[in-house]
Amino acid sequence: MNLKVIAFDADDTLWVNEPYFQATEERFCSLLENFSPQHTISKELFKVEVDNLPLYGYGIKGYILSMIEAALNISEKNISVDVVETILQYGKDMLNQPIEILNDVEHVLSSLKDRYRLVVATKGDLLDQERKLKKSGLAHYFHHIEIMSDKKEDDYIKLIKHLDISPDEFMMIGNSLKSDVMPVINIGGHAVHVPFHTTWAHEHVETVLTHDNFKQVDKISEVLEIVGVAESGSPQSGSPKV
Amino acid sequence: MNLKVIAFDADDTLWVNEPYFQATEERFCSLLENFSPQHTISKELFKVEVDNLPLYGYGIKGYILSMIEAALNISEKNISVDVVETILQYGKDMLNQPIEILNDVEHVLSSLKDRYRLVVATKGDLLDQERKLKKSGLAHYFHHIEIMSDKKEDDYIKLIKHLDISPDEFMMIGNSLKSDVMPVINIGGHAVHVPFHTTWAHEHVETVLTHDNFKQVDKISEVLEIVGVAESGSPQSGSPKV
Repeated sequence: MNLKVIAFDADDTLWVNEPYFQATEERFCSLLENFSPQHTISKELFKVEVDNLPLYGYGIKGYILSMIEAALNISEKNISVDVVETILQYGKDMLNQPIEILNDVEHVLSSLKDRYRLVVATKGDLLDQERKLKKSGLAHYFHHIEIMSDKKEDDYIKLIKHLDISPDEFMMIGNSLKSDVMPVINIGGHAVHVPFHTTWAHEHVETVLTHDNFKQVDKISEVLEIVGVAESGSPQSGSPKV
Repeated sequence: MNLKVIAFDADDTLWVNEPYFQATEERFCSLLENFSPQHTISKELFKVEVDNLPLYGYGIKGYILSMIEAALNISEKNISVDVVETILQYGKDMLNQPIEILNDVEHVLSSLKDRYRLVVATKGDLLDQERKLKKSGLAHYFHHIEIMSDKKEDDYIKLIKHLDISPDEFMMIGNSLKSDVMPVINIGGHAVHVPFHTTWAHEHVETVLTHDNFKQVDKISEVLEIVGVAESGSPQSGSPKV
């Protein structure tokens, strides 16, 4: 491998994210429980989110706008604006959420930072992701943060052009096969899949592709072996930072 | 000058933007006219927007969330959720707004593109700005689009580091003295101020700074003289594109 840039997905790769969305969705379902059972509410919210994705994109602000719209649909507008106020507060709570860095992340970054240009490559709101990176205390490991409006092949081609490197000099590390792995492999880059929950990975391991440029790992620390950087010292555990 | 990169602000520099926000604010004031006079509504909306700026940042989605919050405040929650639904629609209308390219912009870009690396440097939502750039038909003139969470000195230092150039190799062109000019001059870059409305510029011309790295122009086509690129052919007029 002739790597120059290693890019890390952020949410659920560097730090915990999805559980905050899930917790907010649970609060939303409780808020509207008089109108529909939980799975109906979740289904409607998901539908509104997907319909709005081309317009709102990824991130908390679009999620909250979709949640308000879904609440109007689910209740057939039989709610007071207090419900809307509560949902606005959910959004602010999410934007202020604490950062919980995942295990071994800091150890991996510190081992790689002098050998490669490290970047964060993530979807979502720029301000929100910058804030999380700052709160995490990990910012100094990265050359910069790349916010991508989507993570399809074209988006990675644009990113690689922007980085002024060739695809085989690029490696992406992330928790999503669909967003972090497949498109990167397809354009000639390298990719490592680090599932967010190990259990999840084991359940789905039979669907994983085989490719010279692809590795599946259980723990992010295995990335060091893949790129040939020796382990130094003992891995540090993740600890919550606010 | 030893310029390598010329960065253009987007909204109200490449295309019309502010009038869409103003028109939406007028609709919002009409919607709530039973509760307060227009200037009180505008004042409250502005207050909520500014309070939320650290959390929401710039862009239409944050603007709409703030508008909903302001409507709750102004009405003391004496509105139905129909009003909320209407405001959500304002947001979708804004995100779907047509692109009206400003005069001479295309001529300037086509004259500069083979001599400099051109980038768009703008605040706001990445997806929204990418969509506008695509709709404008101007995307092919630019190396890439830089979305900045803010336009303060630190943000420009980060941008210039990211571009791998020195400050004196960088020129920013935009309609805001505060965001596009002052911070760039302060870190050693070049800047050109192109006011959105010429009348506005004339009213404020006495406040404009004098600096070797700074030029104030009435029309964006004057940028060509500043960087020493001869005018070729007649400037094209802007035309609306959807």
